[in-house]
Amino acid sequence: MGVVSLFRVAPEGGITAPKGFRAGGLHCGLKKTPRNDLGAIVCEVPAAAAAVYTTNVFQAAPLKVTRESIASGGRLLRAVVVNSGNANACTGAQGEADAYAMRAAAAAAFGLGEHEVAVASTGVIGELLPMDRVSAGIAGLPAALAASGEGAEQFCQAILTTDLVKKEVCVKLDVDGCEVTIAGAAKGSGMIHPNMATMLAFVTTDAAIEPQALQSLLGETTDLTFNMITVDGDTSTNDMLLAMASGLAGGGELAPGHADWDAFAAAFRHVCETLAKAIARDGEGATRLVEVTVTGAVTDGSARAIAKTIVGSSLVKSAVFGADANWGRIIAAAGRAGEPINPETVDIRLGHILVLSGSRPIPFDEDEALAYLKGDTVNIFVDLHNGKGEATAWGCDLTYDYVRINAAYRT
Amino acid sequence: MGVVSLFRVAPEGGITAPKGFRAGGLHCGLKKTPRNDLGAIVCEVPAAAAAVYTTNVFQAAPLKVTRESIASGGRLLRAVVVNSGNANACTGAQGEADAYAMRAAAAAAFGLGEHEVAVASTGVIGELLPMDRVSAGIAGLPAALAASGEGAEQFCQAILTTDLVKKEVCVKLDVDGCEVTIAGAAKGSGMIHPNMATMLAFVTTDAAIEPQALQSLLGETTDLTFNMITVDGDTSTNDMLLAMASGLAGGGELAPGHADWDAFAAAFRHVCETLAKAIARDGEGATRLVEVTVTGAVTDGSARAIAKTIVGSSLVKSAVFGADANWGRIIAAAGRAGEPINPETVDIRLGHILVLSGSRPIPFDEDEALAYLKGDTVNIFVDLHNGKGEATAWGCDLTYDYVRINAAYRT
Repeated sequence: MGVVSLFRVAPEGGITAPKGFRAGGLHCGLKKTPRNDLGAIVCEVPAAAAAVYTTNVFQAAPLKVTRESIASGGRLLRAVVVNSGNANACTGAQGEADAYAMRAAAAAAFGLGEHEVAVASTGVIGELLPMDRVSAGIAGLPAALAASGEGAEQFCQAILTTDLVKKEVCVKLDVDGCEVTIAGAAKGSGMIHPNMATMLAFVTTDAAIEPQALQSLLGETTDLTFNMITVDGDTSTNDMLLAMASGLAGGGELAPGHADWDAFAAAFRHVCETLAKAIARDGEGATRLVEVTVTGAVTDGSARAIAKTIVGSSLVKSAVFGADANWGRIIAAAGRAGEPINPETVDIRLGHILVLSGSRPIPFDEDEALAYLKGDTVNIFVDLHNGKGEATAWGCDLTYDYVRINAAYRT
Repeated sequence: MGVVSLFRVAPEGGITAPKGFRAGGLHCGLKKTPRNDLGAIVCEVPAAAAAVYTTNVFQAAPLKVTRESIASGGRLLRAVVVNSGNANACTGAQGEADAYAMRAAAAAAFGLGEHEVAVASTGVIGELLPMDRVSAGIAGLPAALAASGEGAEQFCQAILTTDLVKKEVCVKLDVDGCEVTIAGAAKGSGMIHPNMATMLAFVTTDAAIEPQALQSLLGETTDLTFNMITVDGDTSTNDMLLAMASGLAGGGELAPGHADWDAFAAAFRHVCETLAKAIARDGEGATRLVEVTVTGAVTDGSARAIAKTIVGSSLVKSAVFGADANWGRIIAAAGRAGEPINPETVDIRLGHILVLSGSRPIPFDEDEALAYLKGDTVNIFVDLHNGKGEATAWGCDLTYDYVRINAAYRT
């Protein structure tokens, strides 16, 4: 990646690293074990806000409330309050009232207007929130907030469900000579997992950026990152990605055309891509990350569709689990993506190992392929030789543990 | 099904039951074990022929040859020759030449014109056919043909790959007072399974029907039957459904408007639906058949899309394996199908057990649900209360054995 030099990764940083942000988390009693299940990010100034939401017809109540806050507050937010353990989805009028009550309680606790607060939930679908516990928890949040790494850590823990690891990233770059920080935190157990109402991601930055420019960047970046992870093709009722920009880093306002815009966009993409890949790698039962890169498609959109079809194929995913260099499944998945392909010109590589050239099998060393496929990350390269479109998608292998986790989850 | 009375199931019948058809199979050496791997169906008169093929961009060579035979022979066929163990897909110019050679050898063996012969293959992708074995085998086919049930049995065995059971069905009905028979045979291990180049199905009948009417009926029926089984969403390079009608039963020519057309169409659909469900039930690793019926959609097409999305969801399939009444996954799958749904009016039943009404959870007896979900067949009913569209889709559960079979298949 040639763009890496435009920014630098800050391994120790988290969502409180950008200037102006505090965060925290605590246990209010939604999870049975004493792990954090309630958290918040609060900005000391109104932050430019942008969000993208699940496309599922069934949208959880908190998404409606957050949408309303961002729209009616001039696209500025001061805080987001998040619970895990309960998705507040398919909960009807009472669920909506509860999401508004969460927002009101957080606004009161932090001394903010209601429309300055966003709400997110993740957890089991179809159960009402125990609002007494939520309200008591929110009242305790102001004392739990910190601008330190510990605050970010407590927040990260508060949004996890079946995740095995927390997902955090932080990068820095220079804008008009001032150091700008972008950080992110996410949850999602890899598999798009409706009953756990799956993916939440939060990006904070101290860059100065107008809300509409942030929304456009967020939308474009989501298409290349979060929308390129596909694990079992399911789409949750609660997915939400929220970005907040405090503008406290100094430097001029960022927008397309600014000398440092490309660096900011690349850094922002790196944050989103790192979180998205971390979600795919932490897939339920997953043993390895699968990265599929398609080149030579007629358009980038076509390449995206093909890459996602391959990385989402149960047969490809099973083959990766079995370290089986089964290129027949890869080409068959490409062929059913509904996109233009010349059936005579396809090359496929597994890492550095060429297995198909001009749509014809190439003899390869099975032991070498086995060793490659047993690695931590499997890269599948598909060159269609049919245009200039390209894309990368991420997923994970399909394992016994996926079946075990999902066969027995609810009961 | 009120239409069942329009025809009668003939449990002992197979593809040789309709007048004019002989069939057979033998082992020519494509499978390592001494199981049949080459078969044929031959009709004593030119039979009206119709076929549908995989939509995959990568189509195996035999499909091209069959398409050409049907088109250039006035949509009449006398025979189809089929091998298993090798898909003759992704095999380039040599593969095409081999498919033509198979057709020529069969035409010579049966004393037919080349354009009276169709060809089908199923098995591993990307390997050339050992044509010496295939040719020797085809030369032996005439002696292997029989109009008896034994001929049908030997043919059924010859088309199987990882199937655990053979799939056969036969029905009878009266047309103009003459007894007409429709029979079918299929292979497909349930999972749409590209490397085994998956589903082949053959329907024979002694009804008199014009080829175009047969093609129209085949297309419409496929949309309601074979196209409604979705197991892992993958589409093979070799899928083919071929119907042949000898016209030897007597009675007038069938076409829409004929007094017995509806009965014939219902019987034809029963044959296709029975084979399709048998494929889903014999899914790799499957322990139960899943039948999803969607009603109250805006159109039948919309209902089909929603039913297929639900039955294809890995999360729904895992939950069925675990006998977990996880309606949250069902509603979330419905919501991502991309079809119009009123999120406030959805009912869901698991068999007779109502679990969601007006999109709100209904308390139900967990033990009763567990007992129901442990049955041999699981029926999921989704009523959207949003129109008059309806459809049924079939699939199977996702199990440890699916992962085992597909992780280790090729090697």
